[in-house]
Amino acid sequence: MTRDDIRPGEVVADVQPKQDAHVRFIGKIHTPFFTRGECPRQGTQDGPECILELDEEWVPALKGVEAYDQLEVLYWLDQAARDFLLQTPKGKGKPYGTFALRSPNRPNPIGTSIVRLERISGRKVHVRGLDCIDGTPLLDIKPYRGESLPKIPHLDFGT
Amino acid sequence: MTRDDIRPGEVVADVQPKQDAHVRFIGKIHTPFFTRGECPRQGTQDGPECILELDEEWVPALKGVEAYDQLEVLYWLDQAARDFLLQTPKGKGKPYGTFALRSPNRPNPIGTSIVRLERISGRKVHVRGLDCIDGTPLLDIKPYRGESLPKIPHLDFGT
Repeated sequence: MTRDDIRPGEVVADVQPKQDAHVRFIGKIHTPFFTRGECPRQGTQDGPECILELDEEWVPALKGVEAYDQLEVLYWLDQAARDFLLQTPKGKGKPYGTFALRSPNRPNPIGTSIVRLERISGRKVHVRGLDCIDGTPLLDIKPYRGESLPKIPHLDFGT
Repeated sequence: MTRDDIRPGEVVADVQPKQDAHVRFIGKIHTPFFTRGECPRQGTQDGPECILELDEEWVPALKGVEAYDQLEVLYWLDQAARDFLLQTPKGKGKPYGTFALRSPNRPNPIGTSIVRLERISGRKVHVRGLDCIDGTPLLDIKPYRGESLPKIPHLDFGT
């Protein structure tokens, strides 16, 4: 074992790579966190403004998003290891199961955050509440659960 | 256009398939909803008991999960169309942007739910709060945000 990313007590799975489905990146996230060490453990909605920059082809799918206060953002943690079964969080002495942690290291390294929407400008969605590294690939934007349709019922969405 | 899944006013993207990364299914979800029509629009934590059935190789990664009340579950909506830009929710007259809806039809059809943990038995995690169809592939289990480490600090996780 020549890996240097495994701490004492940590266990990785002996699993073959398996590609059951694919994701496509739909844009990129800009944050003021440039290394993993700079990322807060969890984003807060009074944190710094970040930008979800959508690829041009997906911009029409933003129609109506401006009516929400909070959004759920999904992103791909592309620097993560995907085989950890047990891992020891920084500063903790004992290993936990991967599913007992929100660590980026997991079989499918998908991060989720609830963010506050500041404004939308073209293909840029300005939000607060993210904790991921600058340049993280964007997977999805959803209304925060419980707000499934815009709260302004007669908002004119045009045709 | 021979597709029969597009309603008036709906728009699909003219995008090439793009495989930026892959997901691996880590198990399967059992629910009492056997068709899309039977699925509730959004699960509630007093809904029916559902089971997250993990593949054997990932069971060790459950260590510590029993200490949580609520979990976040991610799953792959494998019956979804992935090219919708605008779509008209059932019973609504006007199309909304895909990112203004929690519809399963989205570029990366990843569902997220917050569930209540009932119990864990071997590779089966019993929960309430899901709204997906029976047999949906499981992608991830995370502690609900805000509960990042088990609330029982001196819980013995063994070695």
